[in-house]
Order: sequence, then C-alpha cells, then structure tokens
Amino acid sequence: MTYCVGLFLQEGLVMLADTRTNAGVDHISTFSKMFTVTAPGERMLCLLSAGNLAITQSAWNRLQDGVFLDQRKQTLLNVTNMFEAARLVGEAIRDVYRADAAMLSAQNIGFDVSVMVGGQIAGGPMRLYLVYAAGNFIEATPDNPFLQIGEHKYGKPVLDRGVRHDTSIDQGIKLVLVSMDSTIRSNLTCGLPLDLLVYREGTHDIALQRRIVEEDPYLRTVRVGWEESLRAAWLGIPSPDWEYVQQQKTTSEKESAA
Amino acid sequence: MTYCVGLFLQEGLVMLADTRTNAGVDHISTFSKMFTVTAPGERMLCLLSAGNLAITQSAWNRLQDGVFLDQRKQTLLNVTNMFEAARLVGEAIRDVYRADAAMLSAQNIGFDVSVMVGGQIAGGPMRLYLVYAAGNFIEATPDNPFLQIGEHKYGKPVLDRGVRHDTSIDQGIKLVLVSMDSTIRSNLTCGLPLDLLVYREGTHDIALQRRIVEEDPYLRTVRVGWEESLRAAWLGIPSPDWEYVQQQKTTSEKESAA
Repeated sequence: MTYCVGLFLQEGLVMLADTRTNAGVDHISTFSKMFTVTAPGERMLCLLSAGNLAITQSAWNRLQDGVFLDQRKQTLLNVTNMFEAARLVGEAIRDVYRADAAMLSAQNIGFDVSVMVGGQIAGGPMRLYLVYAAGNFIEATPDNPFLQIGEHKYGKPVLDRGVRHDTSIDQGIKLVLVSMDSTIRSNLTCGLPLDLLVYREGTHDIALQRRIVEEDPYLRTVRVGWEESLRAAWLGIPSPDWEYVQQQKTTSEKESAA
Repeated sequence: MTYCVGLFLQEGLVMLADTRTNAGVDHISTFSKMFTVTAPGERMLCLLSAGNLAITQSAWNRLQDGVFLDQRKQTLLNVTNMFEAARLVGEAIRDVYRADAAMLSAQNIGFDVSVMVGGQIAGGPMRLYLVYAAGNFIEATPDNPFLQIGEHKYGKPVLDRGVRHDTSIDQGIKLVLVSMDSTIRSNLTCGLPLDLLVYREGTHDIALQRRIVEEDPYLRTVRVGWEESLRAAWLGIPSPDWEYVQQQKTTSEKESAA
C-alpha cells in the first residue's frame, strides 16, 4: 500500500508521498512514488502514484516516451496546460490497461492505480488533479483543498480539521507530516523515508524537494510536538459532569496528574 | 457501516457505539448497536455489534432464547465466565451462519458481522473480546488495551497515541468521543446519536449508560476543546528551517497570526 497527499493552497502546493512498496508483508521495498517534470520558469509538474508498481512504472515510462493525445504524441514537457497534462496521464494509464489488463485479470489481479498530478504551466492557473485507473479524473478546489490516494483513512481526520485553501504552506507542511505520521503508525504498509515537494504559485519551479528520513530533525520536531500537544489537549478538556464520573473525579484527576 | 470501540482499562471498560445503519446512502436508519445483560452485583456484560443488521439482530435474538454450548442451552445470564460468554456469542453467530449464509451467498451478500463482548462475571476477571464472523475471537490485553469494529481507520490514530491500559476512565471517555467524532466527520455512514457505557472493574454493574445526542453539552465541550487544541497544536509546532521556508517565514507567520 501507499499513502500520498496533496494540498491545493492559495500560496501553492504541498505534496507528500511515502516510499514503501510491498508484495506481501515479507517483500517490502523502497520506491519513490514522486515524479517531477520541470522547465524552470515555464512549468512545474509533480506526480504522486499509488497502486500496482508495475502499472505506475509502466505509465511513467510511457509518459516519458510520449503518449498519443488528440492524435499527437505528447509529453508532460509539451502539453499546453494542466488539464491536458491530466488527460495525458489518463491516456498513459489507459495504454497500460490496453497492454496489461487482460493478463492481470486472467491471474485475478485488479488494475489498481491512481495518480495525483499537481503543478502549473505558464499562461494557466495552478491545478491539482487525481487521475483514476479508468483515466478519468477529479480536481481539487478551494472548497476541497486536499486530495489523497492509497491508504487515506488514518490521515484524513487531521486534514479534515486543519486544511483550508488559505492555510499557509508552513502550516500545510506540518499537517501533511502529521497526517503521514498517523498513517505510518497505524499501518505497516506505509513507511519512511518520505518525499516532500513544495511549489509556490506563479513561480513555475520547485520551491523545495526533500527526502525526509527517520532521523530528520524536523520530522522529529513535528512528531514530538504533536504527541505532546495531543496529550495536553485531552488532559485540558474538562471531564464530564455525569453522575458516575463526578464520584470518581478525585481518583481520576490524581492519576492524570501523576 | 458502523463504528464501535471498546477500551480495556485498569479501572474498567469504556464502550461506545454509533447508531447509524444504512442500506445504500438513501436508506439510513437509527438502530442501537449496544446490548447489555446484567445481574447487578453478579455480572455485567455489554455487546457492541457491526455488520449486516439482519445477522446481528438474529444473533442477539438467539442469545436471548438460548444457544447450545457444550451440549446445553445457555444464555449470557447463566454462562459461568467471560470466556464462555464469548464462546456463546460465537455459537450464536455460527447458528445464524448455518441458517442464512447459503441464501445470502446465492444473492452475493457476504456474511459480514463482528461483535465486541466486554464485561465481568463474579469469580472471574473483567475481559473484552472481539468475536469474528467465523465465531472465533480475540481478546484485549494490557498491551493492546482497545478493540474496534466497523469503520475503524479514521478513529485509530488518536487511540494509538492516547490509550494505555492505565489511562483513567475519564480520559478514556474523552478519547473514544474524539475517535468517534473523527470517524463521523470523515464518513457519512457513521452517525449520531451515540451509546456510551462505562463499567468499573469489580462492581458487576453498569456505572454509566448514556445516549449521547447532537445537542449533548459534553459532546460539544469535547468537540470544541479538541478543535481548539489541535489548532493551537499545529500553530505551536515550529516551522521548518529548510531554506525555502525560511525565506517565506515572515509572510506565513503573519497569516497564521491573522
């Protein structure tokens, strides 16, 4: 499994992916699920992928070689806008489907893939898409400023509560790291290191791309800070004044303080 | 879907269930998923159920009528210890399987059910079990002091971080309410009102049983307190000192403070 998250913020994009790939719990590897295509000053695109590794690698290779869209062979370096970029990624996935799906199906393996495509091409707005296995896609909007693929449930509550379109990039980085940390703690199939990319709207270039390892001091700051804050949070919420709990309050408070 | 959680704490048990039942998003109803059996001073058992409503209701009815275990018809009022209680619940589920599974399978409906069984019977220890659709079961332990059934992923991170065997009941109530609130916000198929039960170890009686509705003042206290604490938490974590973010810090801090 995989967990990838992308934030669509006023200031720009924050995209984060884990790197764990597994074929059963006894076959775990590290593969980057983040791919970038840039022509600095003109375009910046970042792709995050989840699903069957053979499918995502095949789609990525096809994208680099060129995929037919509107009767022309195109790449992410020459599509003219982000909508075309998302369509091209969809076509690449459809090409893989046409090549491999029948044999996968014959062996009872689902055609499992999803790709996030974020970025900006000069002359157009910054956009963030989620392309499905069928090659169709949805787009993040100010009302729905984040997208997730893969093992998304554990890390969703913190995003539901914290991310708005006007959230700053700094806050966004913390939130995706907490969301990822929650997922990694709860599910063995997602793991470190992480790949983080930050894009600032209007710049058409990568602002920050960083491989975050277990020992990363900032990851530790976020983990410890979050852990301590949560502990303070639930100690800080008053206890219920329901009859039973009232009677026990003295004991409980003593234990909480201990 | 459903979300139920049970905490196995030194002080006692905290058990919480939502009440939403749905057959498609256009057929939503409220059904209690909490069942209690008590002989005050001698035994207290609490069951929480998830899965196909027809299966759980059938199992519960069979339990009330009596189910054959060790060649004798028994109920939760006369089994002699908690291990037998869990076995009896398993047998009730197996009886439903024998009666209904073939026809369900013919109509492509899975045999989907799980039941949590917590409580204490005089002469034995307090225990908390999770009974599977096959009628077998696992038990909570001091190392693994909580069990969940149904839509468990959204609400798991807060329990992973917060619940230990020596957590007080007061803290436990807050944690299960936050865990449930996270689930309800992220998944439409879980909904209010909630059923909460508290059992204090050694008492063989219900300490608190409460139907928690949308307007419940304490639920609101927990929701608002948690929301505010989280906001404070991620504002409190320092921003990364990575080169890019350093440059933007002034802007971001202004926005955070605004």
